[in-house]
Amino acid sequence: MDDCPLCQKIMRPPTEDLVWRFPSSLAFLGPWQYHTGYCVLVSRTHAGELFLLPPKSLASFQEEMLILAQALSTAFSPRKLNYEMLGNQVAHPHWHLFPRRHDDPETLKAVWLGFERAETDPVEKQRLTVGTYAREETIERIRAELSRLGAGEAD
Amino acid sequence: MDDCPLCQKIMRPPTEDLVWRFPSSLAFLGPWQYHTGYCVLVSRTHAGELFLLPPKSLASFQEEMLILAQALSTAFSPRKLNYEMLGNQVAHPHWHLFPRRHDDPETLKAVWLGFERAETDPVEKQRLTVGTYAREETIERIRAELSRLGAGEAD
Repeated sequence: MDDCPLCQKIMRPPTEDLVWRFPSSLAFLGPWQYHTGYCVLVSRTHAGELFLLPPKSLASFQEEMLILAQALSTAFSPRKLNYEMLGNQVAHPHWHLFPRRHDDPETLKAVWLGFERAETDPVEKQRLTVGTYAREETIERIRAELSRLGAGEAD
Repeated sequence: MDDCPLCQKIMRPPTEDLVWRFPSSLAFLGPWQYHTGYCVLVSRTHAGELFLLPPKSLASFQEEMLILAQALSTAFSPRKLNYEMLGNQVAHPHWHLFPRRHDDPETLKAVWLGFERAETDPVEKQRLTVGTYAREETIERIRAELSRLGAGEAD
């Protein structure tokens, strides 16, 4: 899909954000690192809905989401993981995995309320962008857990 | 889990909201029917995170989520489906499946912004509660698609 931003991202993944090359997806570190470890897992295959992926891609993409969730959980001991696939802006299958902090004052609510505030409030944007660790270290911690779990890799 | 509200809901499912009894989960029609067809799919088995479900329960729960998503998509032709598992309030695996309307003025955003407004605005709450069809008809439309798809049933 020439006009799909996530197809383009899969073709030319930004090195600094790339966490893992799974057989059926790529994991990227997301921008909102207040939720330290927040990753976006992008299917290598395009489809308008998750269930429209070819069966083999779908099965491995779903497995990879679960392995990444497990790695994030072990690496950052969140209060709870949030798993979200929206696609309202880009309808290409991608999972948002948010490790929710124990000390988040909005821990009972969805993350999107804060991101909405950040659109017009630079201080809030800064607060929600900075994580517990530098981005490079966050990526290394996720990779260490994925390696330990024996997560599959591909070029 | 005696103190888990979703374990209790599985034990005594409210008949008027029950859409389908899958082998590993129950589907309920959710309250926010502005997103006509919005369902909550609750695992029959308790776990603190999705990936902590026993492998067999996990595999069939994930399959059932995909079948329900397909049924909602065919029944209501949404612009996009949103798939979300948060568990911030009740950490028992449950998928929120929101069919997003083509005419939703906030179609590019997450649904939770509206629900947040509805907490303090009765008019907004009413707007987001009423669907295109009566709840009984919405349930019948979903069941018809699930039957057509050959979705598994259990007691």
